[in-house]
Amino acid sequence: MKAAIIGGTGYGAIELIRLIHNHPFLEVGSVISNSQAGHNFSESYPHLTEIINQPLESFDLDRLTEQNDIVFLATPSGVSSKMAPQLVDKGIKVIDLSGDFRLRSQSEYETWYKHTAPEKHYLSKAVYGLSEIYAEEIKGASFIANPGCYPTATTLGLIPILKANLADKKSVIIDAKSGVSGAGRGLSLTTHYAEINENIKAYKLGAHQHIPEIEQVLKDETGSLITISFSTHLVPMNRGIMITAYVNLTGNVSTNEVNELYREFYKNHPFVRIRPEGIYPATKEVQGSNYCDIGLHVDPRTNRLTIVSVIDNLVKGAAGQAIQNANLMNDWDVRTGLNSIPMYP
Amino acid sequence: MKAAIIGGTGYGAIELIRLIHNHPFLEVGSVISNSQAGHNFSESYPHLTEIINQPLESFDLDRLTEQNDIVFLATPSGVSSKMAPQLVDKGIKVIDLSGDFRLRSQSEYETWYKHTAPEKHYLSKAVYGLSEIYAEEIKGASFIANPGCYPTATTLGLIPILKANLADKKSVIIDAKSGVSGAGRGLSLTTHYAEINENIKAYKLGAHQHIPEIEQVLKDETGSLITISFSTHLVPMNRGIMITAYVNLTGNVSTNEVNELYREFYKNHPFVRIRPEGIYPATKEVQGSNYCDIGLHVDPRTNRLTIVSVIDNLVKGAAGQAIQNANLMNDWDVRTGLNSIPMYP
Amino acid sequence: MKAAIIGGTGYGAIELIRLIHNHPFLEVGSVISNSQAGHNFSESYPHLTEIINQPLESFDLDRLTEQNDIVFLATPSGVSSKMAPQLVDKGIKVIDLSGDFRLRSQSEYETWYKHTAPEKHYLSKAVYGLSEIYAEEIKGASFIANPGCYPTATTLGLIPILKANLADKKSVIIDAKSGVSGAGRGLSLTTHYAEINENIKAYKLGAHQHIPEIEQVLKDETGSLITISFSTHLVPMNRGIMITAYVNLTGNVSTNEVNELYREFYKNHPFVRIRPEGIYPATKEVQGSNYCDIGLHVDPRTNRLTIVSVIDNLVKGAAGQAIQNANLMNDWDVRTGLNSIPMYP
Amino acid sequence: MKAAIIGGTGYGAIELIRLIHNHPFLEVGSVISNSQAGHNFSESYPHLTEIINQPLESFDLDRLTEQNDIVFLATPSGVSSKMAPQLVDKGIKVIDLSGDFRLRSQSEYETWYKHTAPEKHYLSKAVYGLSEIYAEEIKGASFIANPGCYPTATTLGLIPILKANLADKKSVIIDAKSGVSGAGRGLSLTTHYAEINENIKAYKLGAHQHIPEIEQVLKDETGSLITISFSTHLVPMNRGIMITAYVNLTGNVSTNEVNELYREFYKNHPFVRIRPEGIYPATKEVQGSNYCDIGLHVDPRTNRLTIVSVIDNLVKGAAGQAIQNANLMNDWDVRTGLNSIPMYP
Repeated sequence: MKAAIIGGTGYGAIELIRLIHNHPFLEVGSVISNSQAGHNFSESYPHLTEIINQPLESFDLDRLTEQNDIVFLATPSGVSSKMAPQLVDKGIKVIDLSGDFRLRSQSEYETWYKHTAPEKHYLSKAVYGLSEIYAEEIKGASFIANPGCYPTATTLGLIPILKANLADKKSVIIDAKSGVSGAGRGLSLTTHYAEINENIKAYKLGAHQHIPEIEQVLKDETGSLITISFSTHLVPMNRGIMITAYVNLTGNVSTNEVNELYREFYKNHPFVRIRPEGIYPATKEVQGSNYCDIGLHVDPRTNRLTIVSVIDNLVKGAAGQAIQNANLMNDWDVRTGLNSIPMYP
Repeated sequence: MKAAIIGGTGYGAIELIRLIHNHPFLEVGSVISNSQAGHNFSESYPHLTEIINQPLESFDLDRLTEQNDIVFLATPSGVSSKMAPQLVDKGIKVIDLSGDFRLRSQSEYETWYKHTAPEKHYLSKAVYGLSEIYAEEIKGASFIANPGCYPTATTLGLIPILKANLADKKSVIIDAKSGVSGAGRGLSLTTHYAEINENIKAYKLGAHQHIPEIEQVLKDETGSLITISFSTHLVPMNRGIMITAYVNLTGNVSTNEVNELYREFYKNHPFVRIRPEGIYPATKEVQGSNYCDIGLHVDPRTNRLTIVSVIDNLVKGAAGQAIQNANLMNDWDVRTGLNSIPMYP
Repeated sequence: MKAAIIGGTGYGAIELIRLIHNHPFLEVGSVISNSQAGHNFSESYPHLTEIINQPLESFDLDRLTEQNDIVFLATPSGVSSKMAPQLVDKGIKVIDLSGDFRLRSQSEYETWYKHTAPEKHYLSKAVYGLSEIYAEEIKGASFIANPGCYPTATTLGLIPILKANLADKKSVIIDAKSGVSGAGRGLSLTTHYAEINENIKAYKLGAHQHIPEIEQVLKDETGSLITISFSTHLVPMNRGIMITAYVNLTGNVSTNEVNELYREFYKNHPFVRIRPEGIYPATKEVQGSNYCDIGLHVDPRTNRLTIVSVIDNLVKGAAGQAIQNANLMNDWDVRTGLNSIPMYP
Repeated sequence: MKAAIIGGTGYGAIELIRLIHNHPFLEVGSVISNSQAGHNFSESYPHLTEIINQPLESFDLDRLTEQNDIVFLATPSGVSSKMAPQLVDKGIKVIDLSGDFRLRSQSEYETWYKHTAPEKHYLSKAVYGLSEIYAEEIKGASFIANPGCYPTATTLGLIPILKANLADKKSVIIDAKSGVSGAGRGLSLTTHYAEINENIKAYKLGAHQHIPEIEQVLKDETGSLITISFSTHLVPMNRGIMITAYVNLTGNVSTNEVNELYREFYKNHPFVRIRPEGIYPATKEVQGSNYCDIGLHVDPRTNRLTIVSVIDNLVKGAAGQAIQNANLMNDWDVRTGLNSIPMYP
């Protein structure tokens, strides 16, 4: 099955190519970059020399849909909203990695993203691709809104305790830390090496566009409106997201009981791993892989649960989950092409 | 005034030497390291070649107190508890950078530090050296328990809002991130380069020995028992601590009003700087300096205050605050020898 | 085919497991660690949770050779020299990643390694596993001495120009830079995070034990005794080696001509890639992969050739080349299991 | 004495401000940035909050020369060439940190810098400010061309052996490694965090504009035309340059004898420190300081000398040496304001 990738010179596209290359049923088809069309890939990415030899192409709807069987959009927000509908109308399977089709509410989208929302028609067509939670919906879908990196780590960490009705829904605080590749390949002072190396930087406190996405999932899963505190921090490393979440428990449960709850919840989901009591995951332990590793701690002094959830932002937080969704859409084993061991150290 | 340093081969001692070297009224006196006695300093620390030429000495109580006017103990917990009392009895001024004399309660100490507490007599003699808060007590003191790195960043960030009675005291959550130098120069797998580079690691959730220290200060300042949630994370950089603290507000105050409250609170304290609304400090902005920079954000969606407080763990979190305390003890301007600009980038 | 790994808790073993897991014809058999026998792997390496579930075993010659078809020794120098002969005598295929069987001369070994050399009998049995150069010998071999990381990057970079008789053999200078994982998982002050982060450190100038290994290969390939200058530097990153080599040219050749020479030399070797004129490889461009990428520059001002050669020290410099050799020994395509794209960024 | 700084928002200017702030006889005067004129400094550099409160100014020749006693140009090449002559004509002392007035030959300048050279008149007025070597000329000068970072580390490392006539002048090879701050604060893909973190990158082999600067100094010092091989590498850290230089020795000298030669050569120069035999400097050992530390190794196998020379590129390689030159111009002790201990770790 030929997979086209649009937005071919960003880190998301590059990671898609890496993963598709290892996938037994997918192969890299057209790679689209309007700005670099006609150039060889290895000019922008020498690590692909002699691996991907085809030139980058410009976007041509007919050619694209004829020559490919599935399209991954690794385009920025605002670009996907224009391209995805054309592709969806052509009937080709589409997985969009941007934030454009994740929020069902146009007004929420416009509040947080500060530009025009896609049409309602397409918003309602898109299935939110949080693979472990919406596997059934994804199986029947042809248009997927692939989740954001922060929302993936956060919702996988929070859903089991919230669905079990063991936590005060007014108490949810998420302290998120991300490696710098999450900001993409576009240049900015914030991602200039000498500025962010040897530095931790808090940014967009209470203002990150992933907040409504997380709240939408939590509402869908619990039936309640959950308003979260969400802080984001940039940390000097390439890959990895850790979220540390805090919720007040409403009853008496031990760390061990919470661990059991999570293990049970994810027992059929090979990419979520629960650490034993007293052990917390580190981002390096999922580097380059599609795992989401979770550690849990109930503090008896405060009766508060601390949840540590880590992913590789470019894999489970983007390209990996997109492949996982492609597997679901095609009824392949969810691990197909994603079976590799994290790169350590 | 001659300043002796005990524990001469750790990072705390090295930072004391760097700062004392720039101090107009202090000079480096004896440097004590029982394990390296007789060796030249530049064998362990080539950066001190031709700057500190004296050999390391072994601990000799009489010689030490004769040849020096003040003693800085940069020794580990458990060592200070044995050495400091001998020095205090000799009548020399002592500033202890370890955790041994910070907790007034022996049983709290033994619960969290897991070894025998110092004698009550010396615990009650020690003045807790959080310079901005206890300046008056420090001025008259001859024995200082210098605060921990996490407690310094945390308490300076929390005291104004808690003292103003604007926060729910049951709601205090502190998410702390530290550079790796905080773990010292002793070897461990956790601080092995390839393990912690490109990694964020959560550790000692709810179990860090700085918890009772923070709670003691908050109780002293507010009169209330405040039980905190406190999580610590190791981040791949050498220096710097950021704490992100969360408290539920009890009334309606804006970010601007909280900013004003903090500015007023610290107006006579040159080492605490408050960022304007919408700007949050980054650890690099205090690198190598004694500043504690604070940014504040009231989220109207949750009526929760987020506090971002950063220090250089080796300066304001250790050696710098020790010098600041020496300045107070000697009635020198608090900035003496600490006036340098953060090293950027 | 079952592959046993001895020395199971070092980075070399971990990388072997990662690569074998992706190999269609090999699977992880016994994993031996005398110090950790009986423990679960995920205690030392949580990233392997739910992937490698078997316990670590102690070394038992009979059991090992019965239950496995090939053995990888990822043991330190001095340990391999004792274990490998026992395995070789049992007739099982052995690939040793240590330096113990690379030098044919016992006295050279003892000069540079400072301990007793293995027996002559086994030294002469071992085939040096520089896969691109000795493919034929490796195909027929049952005992491989896998090359060192520095020698791999260096010899692949130097052999074409030296064999072409275009360089002054007295002029060979190699300036090598390595990431920190090359020093292994054993603790040392040199690899303590705060010491080597934000630092470049020169070490073992003219004294590295890889010098005689490089000189032996160059002599084998050119027939001449070539005495090299070889300097090693530690650089603050996990993975990657770059060698920058300098040779005086004996005739007039352009960068383009040298490029052609190298392309021709390696045309049947998919893991060596030559950059076009004016482009030099960076270590990240081979990260996690088995590639050796080479860039070349003839400086007309000095008539000197500069060669830049990069590898991932844990893959092409250790575990990857070991798998490549296993492929050769078994007459599988040399790319089997090694076909993945470098992880970028 | 009031010191104006032009080019106020680059790293060179920021480091000048840090150093001038600690200088007893200099104080920060006007800070000029045409692009940011009218803005507060702390908008661009929050670490200067409450330290530098004056706004950035636009360039006004009369006001500038009236209100200041000395001018530091931290402007890029091509800008200095236009501004410096105006200032020189006004009679104010000028220290230019750019490359514009370092090369005496206009044609050499235009070959390597690819734009128009300054007028001959001003080129011949500028004194090259390599402080240890040209102290006498600098003392009488009013216009200084401050050396480049690579040339400083390189020439201080090479001059003693070359002047002693102990080295083959055709054999000089310099392998240089630099931290990323050397590339400045301007955005580029090369200095984008995720690109250069976990990476070593070779660039501008044999093509760096510092080559003619080094060759000019070596010719001035030895009387011979010395053509060098010069390779530059970017290393993932903020500060620090290491050069590893190789020269063939013409006679028999031991490492110890070369060490003595260097110690003797620099005995009156406090900022150059020679390591003992077998010890090589690391860049962290000079971090934040004006030192140039040198280690030496004679390899008896090749009779080649390896020289390792390290500096902080922003201090001894830029702002620190500029202050050192201001000290010389004003007949102050060369250490004035530069006396601080390297920041370690």
